[in-house]
Amino acid sequence: MRKIAVLTSGGDAPGMNAAIRAVVRKAKYHGVEVMGIYRGFEGFIEGNMELLELGSVGGIIQRGGTKLFSSRCPEFKEEKYQLQGIEKMKQASVEGLVVIGGDGSYRGANALTKLGFPCVGIPGTIDNDIPGTEYTIGFDTALNTVVESIDKIRDTATSHENSFIVEVMGRDAGDLALWAGLAAGAESVLIPEEPFNLDEIIERIKRGEARGKKHSIIIVAEGVMSGSELAKILKEKADIHTRVSVLGHIQRGGSPSARDRVLAGRLGARAVEILLNGSSGRAVGIKNHQVIDYDLDEAFKLKHKAELSLYTLSKELSI
Amino acid sequence: MRKIAVLTSGGDAPGMNAAIRAVVRKAKYHGVEVMGIYRGFEGFIEGNMELLELGSVGGIIQRGGTKLFSSRCPEFKEEKYQLQGIEKMKQASVEGLVVIGGDGSYRGANALTKLGFPCVGIPGTIDNDIPGTEYTIGFDTALNTVVESIDKIRDTATSHENSFIVEVMGRDAGDLALWAGLAAGAESVLIPEEPFNLDEIIERIKRGEARGKKHSIIIVAEGVMSGSELAKILKEKADIHTRVSVLGHIQRGGSPSARDRVLAGRLGARAVEILLNGSSGRAVGIKNHQVIDYDLDEAFKLKHKAELSLYTLSKELSI
Amino acid sequence: MRKIAVLTSGGDAPGMNAAIRAVVRKAKYHGVEVMGIYRGFEGFIEGNMELLELGSVGGIIQRGGTKLFSSRCPEFKEEKYQLQGIEKMKQASVEGLVVIGGDGSYRGANALTKLGFPCVGIPGTIDNDIPGTEYTIGFDTALNTVVESIDKIRDTATSHENSFIVEVMGRDAGDLALWAGLAAGAESVLIPEEPFNLDEIIERIKRGEARGKKHSIIIVAEGVMSGSELAKILKEKADIHTRVSVLGHIQRGGSPSARDRVLAGRLGARAVEILLNGSSGRAVGIKNHQVIDYDLDEAFKLKHKAELSLYTLSKELSI
Amino acid sequence: MRKIAVLTSGGDAPGMNAAIRAVVRKAKYHGVEVMGIYRGFEGFIEGNMELLELGSVGGIIQRGGTKLFSSRCPEFKEEKYQLQGIEKMKQASVEGLVVIGGDGSYRGANALTKLGFPCVGIPGTIDNDIPGTEYTIGFDTALNTVVESIDKIRDTATSHENSFIVEVMGRDAGDLALWAGLAAGAESVLIPEEPFNLDEIIERIKRGEARGKKHSIIIVAEGVMSGSELAKILKEKADIHTRVSVLGHIQRGGSPSARDRVLAGRLGARAVEILLNGSSGRAVGIKNHQVIDYDLDEAFKLKHKAELSLYTLSKELSI
Repeated sequence: MRKIAVLTSGGDAPGMNAAIRAVVRKAKYHGVEVMGIYRGFEGFIEGNMELLELGSVGGIIQRGGTKLFSSRCPEFKEEKYQLQGIEKMKQASVEGLVVIGGDGSYRGANALTKLGFPCVGIPGTIDNDIPGTEYTIGFDTALNTVVESIDKIRDTATSHENSFIVEVMGRDAGDLALWAGLAAGAESVLIPEEPFNLDEIIERIKRGEARGKKHSIIIVAEGVMSGSELAKILKEKADIHTRVSVLGHIQRGGSPSARDRVLAGRLGARAVEILLNGSSGRAVGIKNHQVIDYDLDEAFKLKHKAELSLYTLSKELSI
Repeated sequence: MRKIAVLTSGGDAPGMNAAIRAVVRKAKYHGVEVMGIYRGFEGFIEGNMELLELGSVGGIIQRGGTKLFSSRCPEFKEEKYQLQGIEKMKQASVEGLVVIGGDGSYRGANALTKLGFPCVGIPGTIDNDIPGTEYTIGFDTALNTVVESIDKIRDTATSHENSFIVEVMGRDAGDLALWAGLAAGAESVLIPEEPFNLDEIIERIKRGEARGKKHSIIIVAEGVMSGSELAKILKEKADIHTRVSVLGHIQRGGSPSARDRVLAGRLGARAVEILLNGSSGRAVGIKNHQVIDYDLDEAFKLKHKAELSLYTLSKELSI
Repeated sequence: MRKIAVLTSGGDAPGMNAAIRAVVRKAKYHGVEVMGIYRGFEGFIEGNMELLELGSVGGIIQRGGTKLFSSRCPEFKEEKYQLQGIEKMKQASVEGLVVIGGDGSYRGANALTKLGFPCVGIPGTIDNDIPGTEYTIGFDTALNTVVESIDKIRDTATSHENSFIVEVMGRDAGDLALWAGLAAGAESVLIPEEPFNLDEIIERIKRGEARGKKHSIIIVAEGVMSGSELAKILKEKADIHTRVSVLGHIQRGGSPSARDRVLAGRLGARAVEILLNGSSGRAVGIKNHQVIDYDLDEAFKLKHKAELSLYTLSKELSI
Repeated sequence: MRKIAVLTSGGDAPGMNAAIRAVVRKAKYHGVEVMGIYRGFEGFIEGNMELLELGSVGGIIQRGGTKLFSSRCPEFKEEKYQLQGIEKMKQASVEGLVVIGGDGSYRGANALTKLGFPCVGIPGTIDNDIPGTEYTIGFDTALNTVVESIDKIRDTATSHENSFIVEVMGRDAGDLALWAGLAAGAESVLIPEEPFNLDEIIERIKRGEARGKKHSIIIVAEGVMSGSELAKILKEKADIHTRVSVLGHIQRGGSPSARDRVLAGRLGARAVEILLNGSSGRAVGIKNHQVIDYDLDEAFKLKHKAELSLYTLSKELSI
């Protein structure tokens, strides 16, 4: 291959820029050119792209968001548009594609590969919900953002002796909530992977109160219910008054953490290697600290599993 | 005076701990003892307090919240409770009181002074809404928290080309929104002090779009309306789709900024000087970089004014 | 005027980008074009510049450093080069210049104005050493960086019961050291504006030790002496062992604080107004929260004064 | 066991407090009391300790340093002092000890175990140099501190087109330098584990310059040489002028990252389990995301290995 392309798709995540940089620099290292496609698959269909030089990716390793913009592109499910995009790539002599994004983006990459256009997927999402990799790019940064936010909320919770419910992102995955709960020392954590016991949560709050501790932090993953729903339930069932904080989109932004940048560097480089080795239809990931790659098909068959030992531990430490 | 007390009251603010530290150390410098009263006026009524040594305030200058806890104490409006608290203080040989808080707390301090118990007020609130002082302790930190949060939101807004409404605190004051708008480069800012022109906001968004800029940040002070109300209006009136981020209580927490710590140090020291000089019923503040003090009564007569030149400037720079 | 230019010169400071943005947007607001000159006066001499559009200054308000690069250009003291630069500007129809920098940069701006080319200076330096303005752009950010660094050093100082000397920037001005000392609760602060009393510093450390406090933080402004010199003196004179931390260039970087961005916005806008009003040879600044402007000549006659009441206060609070 | 003790020893690291908290809470969960020993093995010898309640470890999860203080205690190598400490523990009915620290601390723990006093070691050091565990508590935080500092230095390096040498900690291990190099996009990284090629470093700088890139960041691990030594060599050998930044003790401080807190929680809990299960002379660690434990003896036989694939990758990406 003499020329490949890279795009970011789906929800943006800190570290996407570091991954773009790694793709460009690793390719350049092997004498291969890289086109940056704008706005994900939308730009792919339209052939909306630009040559990325070494200088184009200078000074972006530390930046949140994605220099290439992202979008959700529902029409890309139709083969018509996929073929149109492949045509655009061929016209520009682009021979392969690196897709940085979540599982929706992987479906696009898989479809293109099956149509004969080689793709590799890099997991970029704060939700940490891609099967086959232990971590996704962006998770560590978002986790730190959540934990720092809860640290701030705890300042006021402690000072005023109020209890807070903090709603965090993660779609169907509870990783952000689970890790943040342990790291922020939350009194209770609700994740989609485990049924929650309302009586236990209430008892935990009351036990703390009996001990003179007048504030609690309860973290709820958006995949379970909204923070305000939980507040209503606690009020109605146990007359416990809580304030609700929905962390929202600050969780997606910010300068990537060191770990997310290193992960982005490693996965970006491997994605290029795979394409240059003539392989495709693969996703890259990290397992036991080693970079791995596996069939995109597998990513849809497997199911991401949260590290549930953290859930038990979290309960034991928040007595 | 040989012994004074200090309490924090109302909404907590970063820098309250630095102010407590300054009160204790300045008093100690003059050989005067300081009692720390817990939970604001509630603790005053009950005489719930403890001697603060130099070591008690070590390592708190950098901490958010308040080591002495805070509370709102509606019953303190009744003279009965005020007198009960004064009695408790007399029993403990406490001869004066420093109150750190907002305008509600000032009312308590004023009432006590009129009953013969000398008080001085220090402005501690993130809202910057105390008349007579240009800045309150906590405002600068909250402002930086808001701006850093908007920086993060902008990462994702830019990447996805979405528009965001960010709702910020401030009660009836627009200072946080106003300063944050200018500092974060928001496209529009809505504050209670100025009528907003919906058509202008809409036009501003559309003008940006016409120029190829597909995201906008609109900041709305909670004193105007909620973020979701504004989103609904924009949707209905102009079919503009926005996402809403309510920053909430993270604005109250965090390690105080350098400025808030310096302000807290200066105001805390002056409050002690006033009491030791035999004066009382005063509030301390900062004006033209000089520490000032003025009658608590004035604080209720005056009205805080936002620096409205920033409003005009903000509009000019967000063309 | 239909077209002006802007450059950054001397040591860079956080907020320079925000000032560039304000210059461009304020000028655009008045229908005036802005050229961005690269590498300070070096680029001025060579006519190395580019038209800045609204989009060129998008997404830079939160970035440290300067998009236009900076440099020190000793040859610019010679009239020959000044005239050469003016010629380049005339060829490009540039009619006025905004110079963002320190006092060295102001000399260049003044010389050009006297040669008939209208200039206005904006104070951009972390040192806060420009006479005529209370604050310079970058000072607040650098101060927060210093204070956060000392907070970190205090973690380890407290844990290990070691004493630390922290050397901070500021050239001949002690502002950074002075403010940081108060904000970080340093035990002693050495600034160029005040003679220091070694015996007092030693006594202060020993008094703390006698009270069971086994660590001290001593801040020394680079204008007094280096941290390692002070460590040597303390060792030799009093057998006090200290570790030295030289904060160095991290003090110049980082995302500008909210205040620095607001200051940059206000000063940048005023600088443009002055040029458009047909005035020149002026510096802009802030005094009692109001934007002011004054003759560049004055900036050389006046002397910046540190707020020495902070020095006294710092001593009283660090008993 | 009904009562155990915990101490922190050697260089302090962010997350030590979170580990102390986990030890106390896990023990309490099993109905076991925990004594906190002050100043590491020094306090062990003297029996200088205090009962830690649930409340004693409230609000410390987010704090840098160690609440129990740390120290280096060379005399603890002598059996006489070890026996004296064991005697003190027996008098207080303390039956086991958790030691949080580096390899020096592990030697102490091992010696005590061999004398019949059950100990377990938890790896707490920013250097990441403990064999048998992939990560030590504090490494992730220090890494992020280093990377954020280099981001700041890069602001000024880019603006001024200067090259910087950044000296980072790590004793004999290159992990901090290696990971930071990749995460910060450094042009060259020197670590003790790999011989460095001066000609290559010089060529890399010159190649960048030829491409128009006028600044470079070179990271040197303290285990290789000092930053100023390297600067001198570059000056003498290739007339390359660099500025030097020694990050120093800020690397040890700061609020622990989410990952360090989670790691501390997991390892602290496991250490308690081991003691309660009647085992001892073990170190805990993390391997492939699972908590493991192994003989303390092994920790001295094994050698920590840096992930050298990052070294190669770093070179490829910094072309």
